Amino acid sequence: MLNKFVSLQGATSTPRSFSQIIAAVAWEVGKPLSIEEVEVAPPKAHEVRVKIVATGICRTDDHVLKGSFPNIDYPVIPGHEGAGIVESIGEGVTCVKPGEKVIPLCLPQCGECSSCLNPDTNCCLKTHLYESQNLMPDKTSRFTCKGKAIHHFLWISTFSEYTVMPDSAIARIDDDAPLDKVCLFGCGFSTGYGAAINTAKVKPGSTCAIFGLGGVGLSVVIGCKSAGASRIIGIDINKDKFTKARELGATECINPQDFKKPIQEVLVEMTGHGVDYSFEVIGHTDTMVAALASCHMNSGTCVMVGAPPSGSQLSFDPMLLFTGRTWKGSIIGGWKTKDSIPKLVSGYMEKKFNPDVLITHTLPFDKINEGFELLQSGKSIRTVLLF
Amino acid sequence: MLNKFVSLQGATSTPRSFSQIIAAVAWEVGKPLSIEEVEVAPPKAHEVRVKIVATGICRTDDHVLKGSFPNIDYPVIPGHEGAGIVESIGEGVTCVKPGEKVIPLCLPQCGECSSCLNPDTNCCLKTHLYESQNLMPDKTSRFTCKGKAIHHFLWISTFSEYTVMPDSAIARIDDDAPLDKVCLFGCGFSTGYGAAINTAKVKPGSTCAIFGLGGVGLSVVIGCKSAGASRIIGIDINKDKFTKARELGATECINPQDFKKPIQEVLVEMTGHGVDYSFEVIGHTDTMVAALASCHMNSGTCVMVGAPPSGSQLSFDPMLLFTGRTWKGSIIGGWKTKDSIPKLVSGYMEKKFNPDVLITHTLPFDKINEGFELLQSGKSIRTVLLF
Repeated sequence: MLNKFVSLQGATSTPRSFSQIIAAVAWEVGKPLSIEEVEVAPPKAHEVRVKIVATGICRTDDHVLKGSFPNIDYPVIPGHEGAGIVESIGEGVTCVKPGEKVIPLCLPQCGECSSCLNPDTNCCLKTHLYESQNLMPDKTSRFTCKGKAIHHFLWISTFSEYTVMPDSAIARIDDDAPLDKVCLFGCGFSTGYGAAINTAKVKPGSTCAIFGLGGVGLSVVIGCKSAGASRIIGIDINKDKFTKARELGATECINPQDFKKPIQEVLVEMTGHGVDYSFEVIGHTDTMVAALASCHMNSGTCVMVGAPPSGSQLSFDPMLLFTGRTWKGSIIGGWKTKDSIPKLVSGYMEKKFNPDVLITHTLPFDKINEGFELLQSGKSIRTVLLF
Repeated sequence: MLNKFVSLQGATSTPRSFSQIIAAVAWEVGKPLSIEEVEVAPPKAHEVRVKIVATGICRTDDHVLKGSFPNIDYPVIPGHEGAGIVESIGEGVTCVKPGEKVIPLCLPQCGECSSCLNPDTNCCLKTHLYESQNLMPDKTSRFTCKGKAIHHFLWISTFSEYTVMPDSAIARIDDDAPLDKVCLFGCGFSTGYGAAINTAKVKPGSTCAIFGLGGVGLSVVIGCKSAGASRIIGIDINKDKFTKARELGATECINPQDFKKPIQEVLVEMTGHGVDYSFEVIGHTDTMVAALASCHMNSGTCVMVGAPPSGSQLSFDPMLLFTGRTWKGSIIGGWKTKDSIPKLVSGYMEKKFNPDVLITHTLPFDKINEGFELLQSGKSIRTVLLF
């Protein structure tokens, strides 16, 4: 193991490639991840190499394995919800130093593009939505395995003991932050909490409905509760999720399979004229429409949080919108990541909210496929893998 | 004619039925309007009888003739963009007095329901969207023609020399307001102007695109200009609309037929990353999707102003929303009508905006079918009919 840490001995020494690094590689679509030894090249200018300490498994990683995430090149090292420690930095990096605790950002914030300069946007123009992040900005990879270059995922590939990312895709966090917990701030918690706080701007005393009570959906529940919603209705076809949802603030939980009527009609009846805010946190087109129809026809806001399947088409009666509903999307909770994620972690340190209970399983990294099985079977909320 | 005015002689006299009133009746779907003599019963408690002085012809009235407006009963007297003078009032009416100038409200504001009490909504629960307005609240009609009861339209039926409406559907306006102009505030102008000002909340310096440059679309242009938008792009397949659009504030006008690419791609190229605000003011599902795709993928807002055809389905890639766009509907510009329309008329009297140029034709009421032909052929923007 010693050779891995050689460049940690002095921050001023030139970083070298690391070999014998453990990483999970998706060689092709539809295959389980394969634990491999990879070589991780040193960071180039404006890049940072990070030792990942903990990483969550998010539904989006499962989409990568299944080939339903857009514009991915294989083989690839997935993972995008990690926390770690800076090991070395390339030339020109000023935002972090070796030894500092960090969260890699699956949505970068370069701070210079028109989106970063616009206070109303959070999708930096360097985001994968605009341009592929399957390779570093210089169009090369820092990962090699069995003599082959392996692609990065969203520039951060946290399913690797060491990983390299551009300095626009990293945020320094509190020195005291527990990395095995705050890794969730890299995606799931920030996405759900921000969808309620930032995107919907839930008002005190309002009524909310959350479709899908996985890790992100429960983070929406936390956000609605923080915002002072008086009624928070959780919806899932898996009743096992209800206990945790209630613990986090849901005032009612319902299973659509318990009703003969469409769930949107049930919700409108439960609330008189529909909820003030609805959140779709599943990524199915049918529940997206049900969530829209569940909110007040004139003043309701529906937030699309679950990623739709790549290339899907959604069909609905436009009268649902015409009457005055608002339908909006939310990426990473609408946060400008580099500015906001450190603040969210500070809020956690100040005990403003506690997403720890979302972590139902902790496994050593080499049990990653077991973690994916827990996700797929609905038995876990969040599994965190530790290196 | 004298018998029509008998009850005007004293505001305290008991109102009587009026006969020999001229009105335009739609006897059945698909037929032109028929000018008829009708009898107009006096207003019951909490109702007002109004002498209509001027009424605009709006696309929505055309939808009624064609049967594409939801939940209409025939025969019916359409018309919903009028201005007039109170002739008599029923018991309990306190908001207006005989002789006062008024605008009938196609969207009532009862002031008592949960929607009226909620500052974020403008669809009073007495609106046609919730409950039919084809008869007065007591489920009877005030119109009779050839021995048959004729239905009301949105409670106000302005295509009649005299008409009766509940007191929740009437707003008093400035005594000096020119009724042949401010009738447009009953629907078209308020709808378009409010879509920009209220629903989109257009910011100074922003970029806007308006799909459809009819009376409502041009009112959106006026709203965007008032809000300080720096770039206002008008879109129409009828180039004849461009002169007026430019006069009202459009900085560019484009015809989709002049491009090989889809218009949304043209707009994204013209603006770098899409417009800040787009407005669909046509009511076609394909232009609704084009308008959505034309706005910035992360921060853009698209407002659906054109009424979708009843029972239509709209199909789109939900990724368009997921990335952060906002899509919302707007009914009568989001205004609480009874509170806001008098203020808009006052703004007009103070010359804050001037929708007079939207009125391209003025006709005597009995030429109403000529007015509809002008609308259908795209030759008019707004035709105002005078009694």
